[in-house]
Amino acid sequence: MSAENSKPRTKIRRPRAETPKGFRDWFGAEVEARNAMLAKICDVYRRYGFDPLETSGVETVEALGKFLPDVDRPNEGVFAFQDDDDTWLALRYDLTAPLARVYAQHQLALPTPYRRYAVGPVWRNEKPGPGRFRQFYQCDADTVGAATVAADAEICAMLADALEAAGIARGDYVVRINNRKVLNGVLEAIGLGDAEAHAIPRGVVSRAVDKLDRLGPEGVRALLGEGRKDESGAFTKGAGLSADQIAVVMGFVQAEGGDGAATCAALRALVGATATGAEGVDELEQIAALLDAQGYGADRIRLDPSVVRGLGYYTGPVYEAELTFEILDDKGQRRQFGSVAGGGRYDDLVKRFTGQLTPATGVSIGVDRLLAALRETGRVGRDAAGPVVVCVMDRARMADYAAMAAALRGAGIRAEVYLGGGKMARQLGYADKRMSPVAVIAGEDEFARGVAQLKDLALGARLAAEIETNEAWKAQPAQIEVPRGDLVDAVRRMLARAGAA
Amino acid sequence: MSAENSKPRTKIRRPRAETPKGFRDWFGAEVEARNAMLAKICDVYRRYGFDPLETSGVETVEALGKFLPDVDRPNEGVFAFQDDDDTWLALRYDLTAPLARVYAQHQLALPTPYRRYAVGPVWRNEKPGPGRFRQFYQCDADTVGAATVAADAEICAMLADALEAAGIARGDYVVRINNRKVLNGVLEAIGLGDAEAHAIPRGVVSRAVDKLDRLGPEGVRALLGEGRKDESGAFTKGAGLSADQIAVVMGFVQAEGGDGAATCAALRALVGATATGAEGVDELEQIAALLDAQGYGADRIRLDPSVVRGLGYYTGPVYEAELTFEILDDKGQRRQFGSVAGGGRYDDLVKRFTGQLTPATGVSIGVDRLLAALRETGRVGRDAAGPVVVCVMDRARMADYAAMAAALRGAGIRAEVYLGGGKMARQLGYADKRMSPVAVIAGEDEFARGVAQLKDLALGARLAAEIETNEAWKAQPAQIEVPRGDLVDAVRRMLARAGAA
Repeated sequence: MSAENSKPRTKIRRPRAETPKGFRDWFGAEVEARNAMLAKICDVYRRYGFDPLETSGVETVEALGKFLPDVDRPNEGVFAFQDDDDTWLALRYDLTAPLARVYAQHQLALPTPYRRYAVGPVWRNEKPGPGRFRQFYQCDADTVGAATVAADAEICAMLADALEAAGIARGDYVVRINNRKVLNGVLEAIGLGDAEAHAIPRGVVSRAVDKLDRLGPEGVRALLGEGRKDESGAFTKGAGLSADQIAVVMGFVQAEGGDGAATCAALRALVGATATGAEGVDELEQIAALLDAQGYGADRIRLDPSVVRGLGYYTGPVYEAELTFEILDDKGQRRQFGSVAGGGRYDDLVKRFTGQLTPATGVSIGVDRLLAALRETGRVGRDAAGPVVVCVMDRARMADYAAMAAALRGAGIRAEVYLGGGKMARQLGYADKRMSPVAVIAGEDEFARGVAQLKDLALGARLAAEIETNEAWKAQPAQIEVPRGDLVDAVRRMLARAGAA
Repeated sequence: MSAENSKPRTKIRRPRAETPKGFRDWFGAEVEARNAMLAKICDVYRRYGFDPLETSGVETVEALGKFLPDVDRPNEGVFAFQDDDDTWLALRYDLTAPLARVYAQHQLALPTPYRRYAVGPVWRNEKPGPGRFRQFYQCDADTVGAATVAADAEICAMLADALEAAGIARGDYVVRINNRKVLNGVLEAIGLGDAEAHAIPRGVVSRAVDKLDRLGPEGVRALLGEGRKDESGAFTKGAGLSADQIAVVMGFVQAEGGDGAATCAALRALVGATATGAEGVDELEQIAALLDAQGYGADRIRLDPSVVRGLGYYTGPVYEAELTFEILDDKGQRRQFGSVAGGGRYDDLVKRFTGQLTPATGVSIGVDRLLAALRETGRVGRDAAGPVVVCVMDRARMADYAAMAAALRGAGIRAEVYLGGGKMARQLGYADKRMSPVAVIAGEDEFARGVAQLKDLALGARLAAEIETNEAWKAQPAQIEVPRGDLVDAVRRMLARAGAA
């Protein structure tokens, strides 16, 4: 930057063709893969009775809440700007805050319970990093106005169905459920029930529980006690709990039993004396029974007391979908792919506007994470084939080339006429860049004889990649001549051969 | 506002649950109708070989161009805000400016010509009005890097195909094509060739030509001469042309002949002496010949010298799709529905970044306008039926109700369990609000007997609307009892009956 700034300015500086810092573009196959995945997920949401809702990208800062602007610098976490009438506006940072606003605004017109799904970009004014962008997609489903935990169970079942519809195999994911009330009961049981008076140790305990996956039981135990020194030597101060207190929390963290009933029995023993804790265990028991009756076994959905979920606004059940297959991380180490979706019950968000408690629960799928997972498992990522390219040998024949492309399109085949400059080599180079499966070639001679040449580019590319099959190359003609009247059928046959290969 | 501000503030003021001024939400059937229409249009774009591109909503103000920020108040037409490093960012106001940036940034990686389509929201910081929102959708297709007018002809043919795919009947639309070069040739022919020296009369002439539809030939003639007084008595100063000059311009405006050849012949007579004009007519002739050879007759696409298109950046062919059927306007007057899409050739947009001339042409469909047109013609707008609602008579049976809904979903039927509070009347009220076609009802008695009640809500609503068919009401039972094992098939039969009615 500084080197650039110190250069003498040219008289007319051209604008830089750059995405803003932390933003990106999505091209062709990426857009198609994402849209195809989202369509499958939304189809599941829809079949469960959820209706689409689309809010605009811009909300008042007041409605978004949480991020209140300073006078000069409101951009703390959100992209904010002032309207003509001085109202502060901001780009939405998630799809839940707008839902709370919509429900409060349109409550009388909407059915209750209101099941809605939403898909779209959200914006975060955060420091960008590798793979961390300031605009990304979310795909949410929420039920507003249903107090029963049957609504939470439904969201978890639907999440499992949605992941499978998207292409995650059964066994490659697990939806883990916990309940904030149980952790609160545990904290109460060890004398940290007062949320304000014990805010600091409660926070340390929550974060420690959340780290079970990464640190293991010994790491969590250290954080609950005096503290923990990590591999780099950095020390994290612990919650300073006594041995008895630690034993209760560790019992909670490791309460997961063979099935929901066993887990609930273990939890009940730990929190039984506290009303909040007992209520939390009751709710988990109901959720487990509902899911069990519907055939969602522990291979798909299970109770797991170590699930915490960061967001402060959850008030009851919380859930998280984790992909269990292993990938190699940046350092070449094998690790589980990890979380791709999460959510929970938030009974206070609508109340901000209306003053009335409005139960709500819902899930948000991290679209880019899930897409990356599908790419890892090979279920997307092979670039889709491009269109058939009709080459232009004779510019006076443009109408004929256009007619050929139109005939192919009429048969449902993606096709285009080459509209750039240059001769055959450049046109085939273009077709190559487009990943075209077939090129149609017809010059003066072909038109005179009423034929066209078809070049099987997919076969050509494959043969070029496998040098040893030189014999096969000769045996399988990569270019054939067909009568004009047979063009569409011949292309179709060639595409079928390419698709079958 | 002032009345509100003068009220004494309550101690805790709740945030207002409101969309910002000029923004709106889209609910259920609206989202589905729009997405269905866009899917059909994009499918046409795709079959023509266009690839999707999605850019983020945020661009640098520098890349967007045109709207340069004042230091304090950059929000002139765009929503702008400053990044941490003081770079000015803004929400995109169309999909063309981001395309020019993308092509300049990724030119080497992209095929040339680059055919791309894009769908998404754009934002305008303008005064909102009835039906005028500050966020709306556009649906664009552009070809970058093709100098040939075959690219323009292709866009026009594709636009006609896209409108028909969306549901506009042939005969209800026309794509009208003109060429900026022809108008420039006419201006040159009447001595106004110097764009800078004659900026003012050239502007008046362009705007006058654009108003042929609304004002008729006499109104345009007045604006070309001294000026025109409208019905309200307001006077618009004219271009002050001489009678000879006016005759040439009026000849141009009314040059549309029976077919493309006739129109071109008339135009050639008017501009023949000017190089620019002749080039423009040549291009129109080529476009007309290409479209004619592909069977796009004057009922679908035609040359029309009165098409101007407002945007300053067009450099050659311009085109516009107009819906020709009549609607009643706000004042109850019959008028043509009007323009739903427009575009043209803009050879200078990429050059802003690269310094190199890069030919480009493309179209933008006004998504909300086209959707409104489909609603007018009755092709969308009937609210889609809601899901089947499984009522909850016995809360201990939630797992059974969930299993019924799951069985229906398994058969591809949209279904949900009622998750709110209240008894039968409230549940049926909910189903009504959801526009559910069928309610499933099973209480203790039904479970004991292994049956369920199905209530045909669609039929009930229809019968209630037609009081005279009281006999039919009795004859057609709106509620039937079915064995549990027959639930899915019985619901399917009831839905088929509702769909057929």
